[in-house]
Amino acid sequence: MPSADAADLTALGRRAREAARPLALASTATKDAALLAAADLLDERVADVLRANAGDVARAEAAGAPATVIDRLRLDERRVASMAAGLRDVAALADPAGQVVDGWTRPNGLRIEQVRVPLGIVGIIYENRPNVTSDAAALCVKSGNVAFLRGSSAAITSNTAIAALLREGFAKAGLPEDALVLVEDTSRESAVEFMRLRGMIDCLIPRGGRSLIEAILEHATVPYVIDGDGNCHVYVDESADLDMALSIVRNAKTSRPSVCNAAESLVVHAAVAGRALPVLAEALMADGVTLLGDDRARALVPPMGAASEDDFGREFLDLTMSVAVVDSLEDAIAWVNRYGSGHSEAIVTSSFEAAERFLREVDAAAVLVNASTRFVDGGEFGFGAEIGISTQKLHARGPMGLRELTTTKYVVRGDGQVRS
Amino acid sequence: MPSADAADLTALGRRAREAARPLALASTATKDAALLAAADLLDERVADVLRANAGDVARAEAAGAPATVIDRLRLDERRVASMAAGLRDVAALADPAGQVVDGWTRPNGLRIEQVRVPLGIVGIIYENRPNVTSDAAALCVKSGNVAFLRGSSAAITSNTAIAALLREGFAKAGLPEDALVLVEDTSRESAVEFMRLRGMIDCLIPRGGRSLIEAILEHATVPYVIDGDGNCHVYVDESADLDMALSIVRNAKTSRPSVCNAAESLVVHAAVAGRALPVLAEALMADGVTLLGDDRARALVPPMGAASEDDFGREFLDLTMSVAVVDSLEDAIAWVNRYGSGHSEAIVTSSFEAAERFLREVDAAAVLVNASTRFVDGGEFGFGAEIGISTQKLHARGPMGLRELTTTKYVVRGDGQVRS
Repeated sequence: MPSADAADLTALGRRAREAARPLALASTATKDAALLAAADLLDERVADVLRANAGDVARAEAAGAPATVIDRLRLDERRVASMAAGLRDVAALADPAGQVVDGWTRPNGLRIEQVRVPLGIVGIIYENRPNVTSDAAALCVKSGNVAFLRGSSAAITSNTAIAALLREGFAKAGLPEDALVLVEDTSRESAVEFMRLRGMIDCLIPRGGRSLIEAILEHATVPYVIDGDGNCHVYVDESADLDMALSIVRNAKTSRPSVCNAAESLVVHAAVAGRALPVLAEALMADGVTLLGDDRARALVPPMGAASEDDFGREFLDLTMSVAVVDSLEDAIAWVNRYGSGHSEAIVTSSFEAAERFLREVDAAAVLVNASTRFVDGGEFGFGAEIGISTQKLHARGPMGLRELTTTKYVVRGDGQVRS
Repeated sequence: MPSADAADLTALGRRAREAARPLALASTATKDAALLAAADLLDERVADVLRANAGDVARAEAAGAPATVIDRLRLDERRVASMAAGLRDVAALADPAGQVVDGWTRPNGLRIEQVRVPLGIVGIIYENRPNVTSDAAALCVKSGNVAFLRGSSAAITSNTAIAALLREGFAKAGLPEDALVLVEDTSRESAVEFMRLRGMIDCLIPRGGRSLIEAILEHATVPYVIDGDGNCHVYVDESADLDMALSIVRNAKTSRPSVCNAAESLVVHAAVAGRALPVLAEALMADGVTLLGDDRARALVPPMGAASEDDFGREFLDLTMSVAVVDSLEDAIAWVNRYGSGHSEAIVTSSFEAAERFLREVDAAAVLVNASTRFVDGGEFGFGAEIGISTQKLHARGPMGLRELTTTKYVVRGDGQVRS
């Protein structure tokens, strides 16, 4: 027998299911009007949102949450204005639904098209930041999907207030209010039940840490896309322009160390390590980076700490970087394929052959030559917005924009054909 | 602690992993040569294959297996020749790996391409028919993937013999023997362990009944694509050409009732039911079809049995068909969306508006106007071959050919760009 929570979630799922058909069939104009109406309401009622948010912040402070957590939770006028701007930005993007992806005519006269259509209901489990409620809903609704959202307990008051405003805005434009359904029960049990709402979630996107991913692998029965770790490498080849290498390594490591496309590991060809590594290390350490190296790296830069085997596989998400020296391009590729998490991997080189071989042989969502790993991002790729970065191989791999929130259907037109 | 079986499977998975990189990087010419060498060996050693198969057949007969099961299990010279021909056919198809799917240049000069690449290791769980060993391996290897296969215990002797021949052929052309890895432990426990070989299976494709699908939903931690039921409808609209309707309904129901793209349900507009249904029913019953209808259908065709609510949701897979009368196109669409399994749904109509509305509003992998549902098939779509038909929305939806056995990676080329 399902628990009371499961029954509640099932009722929410049924509401999402009811809303999914009208949303999938809504015109682009209606969806855009809904996003703009929601943005206007966020602007008009910023005080209501901030009042709700103050409740979450006070609870977190009373519970002794760390300052970084409270900063991520806290909204101010600027942050709410940025949520409204995000809704308007997404309204301005092209609608992926209805795009004809492929089409051909068969010898028997059947005309076959593959057409992009909304997934239906997109479930998202996320932590802390209340702006995700608005950002995720915008992408889901623009692509014709119901946003079925489950945020954290820490942000529940803020999320509830934001969701109510968005729902009101959507309804103003003629969309179902249930284009956004927010799960208000934020218990751990409800997260597991959420992952098992088969038939009520067409795609689940978790945005959280390793324990959330592990819970999904263990419990989910709904289809999901994993937005996983980024243990990204920059490999400095023997033919690298060392000024370019310095600029790219510093940017990849230090421009925003807490994000998944930041570099976590530096790999240097032995032929240039003697010249390059002391310069790179000095600059990185001046930037506040703690380096942990293998024996050969440490011999060249004695102040460097020793890296354990685990360190090479670790996504530090802070100003720490592992360093290794390799004997060849081949060893560099093997190293990256062994320790990387399949996110984003870069080579700095002036050799055409080395570049093309690295691009071909490294197995990752994105491979880059002479550019910072930090570019692997929906915005930087030109997608206009991003719902996450997939590190899995099925459905979507790499930055996910509106297109990745769709599926396709085959449309077949005939004049009476039967199969012999 | 993993069981002994799990340890064995893990060892097999490691072998598959080792083979995955060379296979992904193999040239089309090498992969084609491998398939042709395997085909030649099947031809040369047909006697060995038939001897191995005789062992499986004898065991099945001793165990009192039904004649249909034994027929599916049994190989003869013609069937082995057809497996060899299948390998040659797949060798002749275009290689999807390396195809540039999309590409653009960013304002900062970064050149971004999205390139099709092999998934890595494709796991397949399948039942009875030993030809699947060869057919599935061909598609996997052609697309640059290791075929990690787990067949049934009933066919284990045949599968082992076929796999050994294929591996020998692959090695002759310079591919790793482990381009095909066959699991010889066919216990139920090993199936569950197989579904949990995370990192050793990049995509699992189950080919089996409902209990296999349920085991995957419950236990799998590897990514998978569900090849699910087909409860397909043919809807005869008020404007349908009734001769065309008769031809399509008979073809969809009776040309091969045991397959997933066969029609299971007939839905007729009330305005034409009085004229159409007696004619359709008479022809279907003459074809040996048992009809189970709702009250309105039975009033028009009294010999028809009564359909229960469950019957309308059932994939009969035999010469049984449910029948319903609806009052409008809108009701027909709602009916199909309610009872359908999202596989293939057809309308027979002469109305442009009805056709376009059905195509747009019915939510299924394939929607057809004036054509038999039986065309929803990789071969009939022109894919050359098929690994299954996906009824899920992520990654692949509808017939899956070589393209669906690939993923993509983003390739980014720059000249020193860093992110500001």
